[in-house]
Amino acid sequence: MQHTETVEISGHLMDSGILSQVLDDIREYGGDYVIERFDVGHDAGDPSYAQIQVAAEDDEALQRLLMRLQTRGVNQTDPGEATIAEADADGVFPDGFYSTTNLETKVRLDGAWIRVDNPEMDCGLVVEQVEGARRVRTLPMVDVRRGMQIVAGASGIRVEPLRTDRSEESFGFMESDVSSEKPQAVLVRQVADGMRQAKANGQNVLWVGGPGVVHTGAAPAMVELVKAGFVDVLFAGNALATHDIESSLYGTSLGIDLAVGKGVEHGHEHHIRAINTIRKAGSIRAAVEQGVLTGGIMHALVTAGKEFVLVGSVRDDGPLPDVYTDVIEGQRAMRAGLTDVGFCLMVATMLHSVATGNILPASVPLVCVDINPATVTKLADRGSSQARGIVTDVGLFVEQLAGELVPDYRRR
Amino acid sequence: MQHTETVEISGHLMDSGILSQVLDDIREYGGDYVIERFDVGHDAGDPSYAQIQVAAEDDEALQRLLMRLQTRGVNQTDPGEATIAEADADGVFPDGFYSTTNLETKVRLDGAWIRVDNPEMDCGLVVEQVEGARRVRTLPMVDVRRGMQIVAGASGIRVEPLRTDRSEESFGFMESDVSSEKPQAVLVRQVADGMRQAKANGQNVLWVGGPGVVHTGAAPAMVELVKAGFVDVLFAGNALATHDIESSLYGTSLGIDLAVGKGVEHGHEHHIRAINTIRKAGSIRAAVEQGVLTGGIMHALVTAGKEFVLVGSVRDDGPLPDVYTDVIEGQRAMRAGLTDVGFCLMVATMLHSVATGNILPASVPLVCVDINPATVTKLADRGSSQARGIVTDVGLFVEQLAGELVPDYRRR
Amino acid sequence: MQHTETVEISGHLMDSGILSQVLDDIREYGGDYVIERFDVGHDAGDPSYAQIQVAAEDDEALQRLLMRLQTRGVNQTDPGEATIAEADADGVFPDGFYSTTNLETKVRLDGAWIRVDNPEMDCGLVVEQVEGARRVRTLPMVDVRRGMQIVAGASGIRVEPLRTDRSEESFGFMESDVSSEKPQAVLVRQVADGMRQAKANGQNVLWVGGPGVVHTGAAPAMVELVKAGFVDVLFAGNALATHDIESSLYGTSLGIDLAVGKGVEHGHEHHIRAINTIRKAGSIRAAVEQGVLTGGIMHALVTAGKEFVLVGSVRDDGPLPDVYTDVIEGQRAMRAGLTDVGFCLMVATMLHSVATGNILPASVPLVCVDINPATVTKLADRGSSQARGIVTDVGLFVEQLAGELVPDYRRR
Amino acid sequence: MQHTETVEISGHLMDSGILSQVLDDIREYGGDYVIERFDVGHDAGDPSYAQIQVAAEDDEALQRLLMRLQTRGVNQTDPGEATIAEADADGVFPDGFYSTTNLETKVRLDGAWIRVDNPEMDCGLVVEQVEGARRVRTLPMVDVRRGMQIVAGASGIRVEPLRTDRSEESFGFMESDVSSEKPQAVLVRQVADGMRQAKANGQNVLWVGGPGVVHTGAAPAMVELVKAGFVDVLFAGNALATHDIESSLYGTSLGIDLAVGKGVEHGHEHHIRAINTIRKAGSIRAAVEQGVLTGGIMHALVTAGKEFVLVGSVRDDGPLPDVYTDVIEGQRAMRAGLTDVGFCLMVATMLHSVATGNILPASVPLVCVDINPATVTKLADRGSSQARGIVTDVGLFVEQLAGELVPDYRRR
Repeated sequence: MQHTETVEISGHLMDSGILSQVLDDIREYGGDYVIERFDVGHDAGDPSYAQIQVAAEDDEALQRLLMRLQTRGVNQTDPGEATIAEADADGVFPDGFYSTTNLETKVRLDGAWIRVDNPEMDCGLVVEQVEGARRVRTLPMVDVRRGMQIVAGASGIRVEPLRTDRSEESFGFMESDVSSEKPQAVLVRQVADGMRQAKANGQNVLWVGGPGVVHTGAAPAMVELVKAGFVDVLFAGNALATHDIESSLYGTSLGIDLAVGKGVEHGHEHHIRAINTIRKAGSIRAAVEQGVLTGGIMHALVTAGKEFVLVGSVRDDGPLPDVYTDVIEGQRAMRAGLTDVGFCLMVATMLHSVATGNILPASVPLVCVDINPATVTKLADRGSSQARGIVTDVGLFVEQLAGELVPDYRRR
Repeated sequence: MQHTETVEISGHLMDSGILSQVLDDIREYGGDYVIERFDVGHDAGDPSYAQIQVAAEDDEALQRLLMRLQTRGVNQTDPGEATIAEADADGVFPDGFYSTTNLETKVRLDGAWIRVDNPEMDCGLVVEQVEGARRVRTLPMVDVRRGMQIVAGASGIRVEPLRTDRSEESFGFMESDVSSEKPQAVLVRQVADGMRQAKANGQNVLWVGGPGVVHTGAAPAMVELVKAGFVDVLFAGNALATHDIESSLYGTSLGIDLAVGKGVEHGHEHHIRAINTIRKAGSIRAAVEQGVLTGGIMHALVTAGKEFVLVGSVRDDGPLPDVYTDVIEGQRAMRAGLTDVGFCLMVATMLHSVATGNILPASVPLVCVDINPATVTKLADRGSSQARGIVTDVGLFVEQLAGELVPDYRRR
Repeated sequence: MQHTETVEISGHLMDSGILSQVLDDIREYGGDYVIERFDVGHDAGDPSYAQIQVAAEDDEALQRLLMRLQTRGVNQTDPGEATIAEADADGVFPDGFYSTTNLETKVRLDGAWIRVDNPEMDCGLVVEQVEGARRVRTLPMVDVRRGMQIVAGASGIRVEPLRTDRSEESFGFMESDVSSEKPQAVLVRQVADGMRQAKANGQNVLWVGGPGVVHTGAAPAMVELVKAGFVDVLFAGNALATHDIESSLYGTSLGIDLAVGKGVEHGHEHHIRAINTIRKAGSIRAAVEQGVLTGGIMHALVTAGKEFVLVGSVRDDGPLPDVYTDVIEGQRAMRAGLTDVGFCLMVATMLHSVATGNILPASVPLVCVDINPATVTKLADRGSSQARGIVTDVGLFVEQLAGELVPDYRRR
Repeated sequence: MQHTETVEISGHLMDSGILSQVLDDIREYGGDYVIERFDVGHDAGDPSYAQIQVAAEDDEALQRLLMRLQTRGVNQTDPGEATIAEADADGVFPDGFYSTTNLETKVRLDGAWIRVDNPEMDCGLVVEQVEGARRVRTLPMVDVRRGMQIVAGASGIRVEPLRTDRSEESFGFMESDVSSEKPQAVLVRQVADGMRQAKANGQNVLWVGGPGVVHTGAAPAMVELVKAGFVDVLFAGNALATHDIESSLYGTSLGIDLAVGKGVEHGHEHHIRAINTIRKAGSIRAAVEQGVLTGGIMHALVTAGKEFVLVGSVRDDGPLPDVYTDVIEGQRAMRAGLTDVGFCLMVATMLHSVATGNILPASVPLVCVDINPATVTKLADRGSSQARGIVTDVGLFVEQLAGELVPDYRRR
């Protein structure tokens, strides 16, 4: 193990459990370590500082270990300079490319630290000249073009770990685990507070939703939340939009009346006919303008001038004309929709939640609500360490959220 | 297959799927059948009638098959007379004893039909002389005493199937399956209606609860429901009462403050200390009277003069002095608590829900609320065919139920 | 309700519960019915026959109800002639288009019954002239072109219901419900029998898999099943292939050694680097040919000359160069892969299982294996009524399946 | 916060995350802390040492916080002497009694450290004179008798934390989380190794099982494991024994043939009749001796002279004559059965798993196998921190375990 590097981390190391994860990482990557220095924060509010020498068998292994550690907020004590490699082919990173985290990141070039524009995990870093200045931004693999200047290795890179002092965090209470046994009314109120704060900061609230929003009867409450300004952007798939539109078009005419609680089973042709109707109109917006679509979540979004990005999946029927059928284009549209997002709520969807978690900076507060604990766990496992989970009923949750946020909201 | 019997069933056979279950039963028991007559109900509201000849290898197999079919509401066309056998030993039924359903049941003795007092599944039927009259009641195996007159075989017995016309049932909408994807606000309202109706009939509302009621923050809402008269009897275990009392005794003093949403992990000594405190007082009632216990669900029940039956389990700490540690005695106390019950709500408990399902007549409306679909499914599989399931968050559900039932109820 | 039509259904109506579903459908669509004739199958093996007059408020409602009933195998007694409407625009069906089932279907044109080529649910039916003959095939909405001749309404269409006599079906035992409490060794053997039978008939075995196949350690057993000829086609996403390739490329070098059971958490850069490596090679096949990829499931498929269709999703990193990023093109590739499929096994994936269920004819035996009961339930709810579910551990299941099917297979 | 005490902890503090839990505890109990000294273990193999001053509002709060910290292996630097209080009443501890952990514990009396006989959580400590010597043992609350000498407060008590260096633990791989996505064949092998090691040490293997063992078809494999000597003690309830016996008595006669995979639904009278049969015989052993019971798990245990403890629950039918109906007596019988247990496997039961976890010393390796992740999580949450979870199919798991442990074991 002749290849070594000294790294450092500071913050609330003692009570966050982060150090244990860092040492786990080193072991998993087959490396070794010596803790060279450890300055403990004596009082409950003090930060701690650790300096660790890590070792690996060869330089490639060392570089990869250093990149891994950066996902925990661990940086090299002597960062050095970033190394640049040129892309040989479209859609392919050079060997040894730096693989990004979703944390705030800086790159050191010619002695100067440059802040990376848009933190996103599992990307590369491309260095560009923009209006005479050097700029570094995250780049998905599929967008690599031959000749691009890509950062390689872990040198010259510094990430800023998330603040880990739980006592100060507004969502600290949800942190310890994902549980269905928590006082739910409090959780609702805290999500409401998070949304209000984002709006107060002039930021957008992003919702990511699955068709369960419609099936659990949460749509009317969500419509009120759209009108009250607490849904600026919606990321979803074909299913949420289709079931919402189907419910508006056929909700009462065919006896599948949400108002009296009849169940909805797939296999009905309603949904395919609803899609055909919107395709005929040309788009969801066109259907609203033509008076074809007169209610529901999608109608509310169009009417209120809010944004939605629908990205398709292989199980889709139709799909609706607004749906991105190419998932790479869909990802690009979702990235564009993240601008100014200051709070993200995910409800009743695994697929689009994970997709959003993939591209969302760790700095955006993120709450995931699902009746299935696995959805919530999955998100955190995938690297969205800021995700807070609430295992509860989506219908009642959105209902209560509207009760908190919408003045004079009355339960149906 | 020389041993045959002709059975009949009537009702909404076509749209209830019951006939398919009956024929499945015959096949599973190794029997055979011929449908001798089938009078179809032509219009949607008409009942149908089926007469079926069933056959089995020997008389014992036939008798057991006939008993099985009675759980579906299938009776012998010619019921004959009940056969009586004498119990040879305490706690043991005679061979071939009739095993009961939870349906309304009549027994024919000397040409007269006698109504069974207290329908309960998996019991025997004992014939007694009470004040000069013959009486038949269900008898748990453990209560058999030598010399008792026990009904044997399926002759002379008639059960009355549950009404199966779904369109008329108030809980019909929940019937098709257990689902977390149902409009929840409607379900809340319908449970409220069920409770109101029971009270209007002068009947009691029975709650069966687990500790999740406390962990999800539902306790304050449940306290209001107790005060408003919608909780007449509570069946629970040591855990619900302990966590409720622990929350009252230590809720704020130690920082595990439900009001700000801190999680509660087992391993704290609070619960064991709370139990010790109540044991020192002598009982929960005594603790209330001594001013030791001043809040929570148990306090509300004592203060309002309502009944509770706490039955222990092998995982209990303590237990509280009010807990039945002998489960057979606990079952007896629960049976006594069923008198006049007209509606049953089960929340967040598998063990006590199944226990209650075991002894509850099928005629009592039964709704089971849990975030775990398995709890709800299990109940129906165990024979409580009248059970309606709601897969939702218990905290928000009880909160909304209080909103429906308690005048001027405000969310905390 | 002046608009009426007479429909009929035959088969094992009594013990399949199908009649109850049919009458439910009528009620849900706001229709009414009279059972005009009911010929009961007297013995257990006899089919029954029902003739039912259905009524609806107007013709559109009636036509839609008739289409719905066809998903249950209910046809019009007097089928009449199919009605044809012309498509006005690309990608849009004419109003009132016939929405297909996944059952065998015939269309009556000018008095002749024409068999539909490729049954698939939620499509339209297009009538074409092919080499002088009229041909009818299912058509996804997105493939509609202006001027196409599309079948409208339910007249002139006949579907052939699935055989419903459970006692004769090899998978009959799994039918009653989805359960984790079944003797699993028997289930493994029956799936093995299903695969052997497909191969004996000269048909292909289709696998649909998720990344859980790799995470549960099932990959080596699956590789043996590929070599033994029991995997002809694989439908999957980017994740299964990526994790399989990552495991081959980095399985031992970095200490995340599947052989000793270390867990794998996302966030490592391995997977993104594995994808980059394959993109550099050009394709999975190229990587095998260049000696870059030397083991695992994808390697085995390439080496054995088997087919795979990878369709992407919005949560994908990369993706691998072989992945269809356009889901509509991916669906087309999957449809092409269905040719000659005689058995389908779905393991550890919700997304691709539902996608495959959408396009698979109901005549292909289909078994879905997952540790999560919801996956299995979802598939059946979506219309794949032939689906049989096994709730079990995927790793041990594939291991045991290899034990049944691969001669001299030894456990690792 | 004038009341302070200095505590210490040593071991692999850095990579175990334990320090973070300790500081969480202090915060939850409303206390404060200063880290006075922290000696970091520099190399991966070195232990660390922390000395922390904790503070609380009053002495009672401080004592309770100190007890809480002991569950993490944190002891007072200056332990002092144990305080003794006398019990005033039967079944009630004195106020401020010391509440135990399941760790190795010593009590200091008159300057001498006395080892506590039988570590068990949530008990008190009673000091007795036994044959002239002082002895300290754990005492359940229900067994307190007036006049007993009970340890109060946290002074004079020292617990020995579990070894936390994961790299050395044989079950270390399972530690990080409960997951269904682990290479299962490896897990099976490691459980087999754990059992072999216990037997090699002359210790007993304890199984705790639920009825799922029978329903998943695992009974034949478990019977072979009994015969091969890998089941010394079984803790279960009425259900496992009843379904096992029912399967032996009626397995083939009534067509519910496990060998061909028919599902078993409750509501059949088989189980109640099976119980009656055993009650008539007098006991399970008597039924074996009379030739009434000739197969299954219970038969194998009786024949092999192995021990079983059946403890009832409120949902039981019957119960079998061997079942403890008083749960306190059942707990006592389970405690007696723990002697010499060196390995514990829990399969398919929540209730009896938690009950066993309550009384099992933390030093006994414990593996919990269930298809439901919640069971496994619950166990760890309740304080059995040594529990390792495997989320998998019970039927296939026990089958494979028999394949590892039983020579010439062949799959059925």
